[in-house]
Amino acid sequence: MKQKQPLARVELAPVPRTVTLLGATGSIGTSTIDLLRQERARYRVEAVTAHRNAAALARLARELGARFAAVADPDAYTELKAALSGSGIEAAAGSAAVIEAAERPADWVMAAITGATSLQPTLAAAERGATVALANKECLVCAGALFMRRAAAAGARILPVDSEHNAIFQALGAGRREDVRRIVLTASGGPFRTWTIEAIRKVTVEQALRHPTWTMGPKVTIDSATLMNKGLELIEAHHLFALGPDALDVVVHPQSVVHGLVEFRDGSVVAQLGSPDMRIPIAHCLAWPVRMATPAARLDLAKLATLTFEEPDPIRFPALALARRALGAGGAAPTVLNAANEIAVREFIGQRLGFSGIPMLVEATLDAAERRGAMAEPQSVEDALAIDHNARRLAADLLPEIAAMAS
Amino acid sequence: MKQKQPLARVELAPVPRTVTLLGATGSIGTSTIDLLRQERARYRVEAVTAHRNAAALARLARELGARFAAVADPDAYTELKAALSGSGIEAAAGSAAVIEAAERPADWVMAAITGATSLQPTLAAAERGATVALANKECLVCAGALFMRRAAAAGARILPVDSEHNAIFQALGAGRREDVRRIVLTASGGPFRTWTIEAIRKVTVEQALRHPTWTMGPKVTIDSATLMNKGLELIEAHHLFALGPDALDVVVHPQSVVHGLVEFRDGSVVAQLGSPDMRIPIAHCLAWPVRMATPAARLDLAKLATLTFEEPDPIRFPALALARRALGAGGAAPTVLNAANEIAVREFIGQRLGFSGIPMLVEATLDAAERRGAMAEPQSVEDALAIDHNARRLAADLLPEIAAMAS
Repeated sequence: MKQKQPLARVELAPVPRTVTLLGATGSIGTSTIDLLRQERARYRVEAVTAHRNAAALARLARELGARFAAVADPDAYTELKAALSGSGIEAAAGSAAVIEAAERPADWVMAAITGATSLQPTLAAAERGATVALANKECLVCAGALFMRRAAAAGARILPVDSEHNAIFQALGAGRREDVRRIVLTASGGPFRTWTIEAIRKVTVEQALRHPTWTMGPKVTIDSATLMNKGLELIEAHHLFALGPDALDVVVHPQSVVHGLVEFRDGSVVAQLGSPDMRIPIAHCLAWPVRMATPAARLDLAKLATLTFEEPDPIRFPALALARRALGAGGAAPTVLNAANEIAVREFIGQRLGFSGIPMLVEATLDAAERRGAMAEPQSVEDALAIDHNARRLAADLLPEIAAMAS
Repeated sequence: MKQKQPLARVELAPVPRTVTLLGATGSIGTSTIDLLRQERARYRVEAVTAHRNAAALARLARELGARFAAVADPDAYTELKAALSGSGIEAAAGSAAVIEAAERPADWVMAAITGATSLQPTLAAAERGATVALANKECLVCAGALFMRRAAAAGARILPVDSEHNAIFQALGAGRREDVRRIVLTASGGPFRTWTIEAIRKVTVEQALRHPTWTMGPKVTIDSATLMNKGLELIEAHHLFALGPDALDVVVHPQSVVHGLVEFRDGSVVAQLGSPDMRIPIAHCLAWPVRMATPAARLDLAKLATLTFEEPDPIRFPALALARRALGAGGAAPTVLNAANEIAVREFIGQRLGFSGIPMLVEATLDAAERRGAMAEPQSVEDALAIDHNARRLAADLLPEIAAMAS
C-alpha cells in the first residue's frame, strides 16, 4: 500500500458554499479554517465567532472576508471593534450576538462551541434549516430529542464532526437505514485500559491527562480515560441515527484506526477508518456530499500491521453502563448524567475527587435525581439548562460524601 | 459486541424479482438458492442451468417453480427431460440452451458458471440489460473492456459476487466515484505466507490445496496460494470500477475479515468486513439495492481480537507483479495471463510442474505472446476465446522447459 497518484481532480460543488464558524478560534475551528484556505474559491464566510479572543477572531475574519464577527464575552467587544475598524466587518458581542451569527444566512454552520452556551446558537442554525456540522456534545446529550426534532422540522441536515459519529455517518452510505442491525462505536480504551482496578483507583490527574492517541482538551481526555466519553457518544448516536439502545454497541480498539462500524442485516459490516486526524471528519462535513482533499496522513494498514479489539470492561470502567442506564431511562437522565460528569471531572482535575469517584458521583447524582422525580424530557433549551443547573447543584451537594468514599 | 436484537423487519422490494441462475448446482448456485428459500415470495425463478447434473437440476427446478432448465452437456438432456416430465418446466441442453436461459426475461441473473463457457451466456444476460450478479472471473479477466462496454450500452447493472469486489462495491456507497483515491483488495496471503522461498519451491499439491480461511475449488485454492487469485482480482477491479493500475492496491490480511477498502480523497477509508461466508455477498447482490437477512455468523470483532495487515512479498509471490504487468500492458495480455495460469495450475495439480513453475510458466507465456505480437484487445467473445486458446497452446509448448527449470 504505497502512496499512489490521486485520481483526476473533480469539481466539489457548483457554487461557493456560504459558511459560518461558531467557535472559529478553537481546535475544530482552526482545522476548519485550514481546510477553507485550501479551497478559498469554493467557500464564502458569512460569520465567525469566538469566546473572547478578539485579536485572533479579527485576524481570521479579515483573512476570510467574513461579514460578521462576534465574541461571546461582552468585555472583548471594544478590542474586537477596534481590531475590525475599517474592514467593513460588523463586530458584535454577547450571547445574543453569537446567536445572531448562527441565524445569519449561511448554507453551512460549524457548531464548534462547547458547553451549555452551545445550545441556543446551534439550535438557531438548525431551526433555519442550515446544514450543521455538529462538533459539540451538549446539543445531543442534553437536548437530543428536542434538537433533532426541531432540526428535522426545519429541514436541517446534521453532519456529525466527532470522528466516531462521522464514521458511522459515512458507513451508513453503504445501505439503507432500515437495513441497519446495529452500529458499533470504537473506543481507544484510554490510558488505563490494561490497569488493574486497584491501580485505577490511584490514578493521578497527570496520568489521566495523557491520552494514547488523540490530543484533546482536558475534559474530553478525562472522559476518554473513564470511558464516559464513549457513554456520551452512545447517547449522541441514539439521537443522530435514530437507533435504540440495543442497536448501539461499543468495542475497545486501542489503535483508534477504525472509527466506527455499521452492521447491516445481511451480515455485512461497513466501517470507516482513517488516521487520527480531525481534519478528515471536518473535511467530510465541509465538502459533503462531495469530498475534498486533505493533508491528513494516508492510512497505511501494512505499516500499522495490527488492529486489536476487545470488549469494554464494565467493572473497571462503570461509566459506559451509567450512560446506558441514562439512555434507557431517557427523559432528563442523559442531561443529569452529563451535568454530574462535568462536575465530577472538574473536581477530579481540581484534585478534590479521586478518579474512581467520577462514576460514583455520576451514579449518586442519577440516583438522587431519580428519587426527586421531575425527570421529564426537556421541551425547550430553558428546560435543558434548568435540568443541567439543578443536576450540577445536586452533584456538588453529593460531592463531599463521594469524595470521602473515593479517596 | 454481544448479539443484539435486530431492528424491525422491513420490506425488501415492492414486487417479486424474477431471477435466473446460471450454474445452479455449484457452490454459489446452492448458496443463492438457500437465500431464495428464505424469501420465496420475493423471487420468481425464470431459468436454472447446470453443467451436467440433470437430477439435481430437475429437483431444484421443480422446487423453485422455474420455467426453464438447461444442462450444458447435451448427453444429460434425456435424463433432464425425463426428470422434468409432467412438471411443465421446459428442458433443454447444450451451450445454446444455456445462452437461451440467460436471454429469457429475468430481472436478475446469477452468473455462476466458470471457465470460458461462461462468456457467452453472461454477456447475453448483460446485453439485454439485466442486473447480473457476476461470480465468474473470465468475463472480466478475458474480455473485461468488451464486457463492461456492452453491459453499459445495454443499461445492465453488474454486481460483483466475489467477496473482495463486493466489499469494494459496498464501500463505494459511502462516496462518489470521482472522490475515490484508490481501492485496496485484501488477500489472505495463502498457506505459504510465512514460508521461505526455498520451502515454497518444494510445496506439494496437497499442501497447496489447504487454504487457511475459505473453502473453494482446487483451481482458486491454488491461485490463492500463488497470489495469482489476487492478481486476477486486480484486473477484475480495474474493469468493474473503472480505476487505473495506480488506484488499485493489495494488502495481505490473513484473517480475511476485512474484504476490501476504498480510500477517498479526504483520507477516509471505508471498508466492508464480514465473516468469511459467501452468503453475505450473494445476499447483497440478490437483495440489492436493499438488503436481506442471512444466516451468516455475525462478526464479533472483540472475539476475533486481532486483525493483521502486511505488504505482499513480490519475491516469494511473483504472480501479483505478473498480473500488474498484464494489466499495464492491456490488450490481450490479461487473457494470455489467465490462460497460461490455468494451464500452469492444471499441470501443478497433475504433478507435472513444481509450485514455483506456475508463475514461471505464466511469465514465459506472456513473454512469448508479446514477442509474437497480435496482442490487441479482444473485440468479441470469439476474439477472446481465440486468444485464450492460442495462449493455452503456447503455455503447453513452453511447459517442458519450465517444468525442468522449476523441478
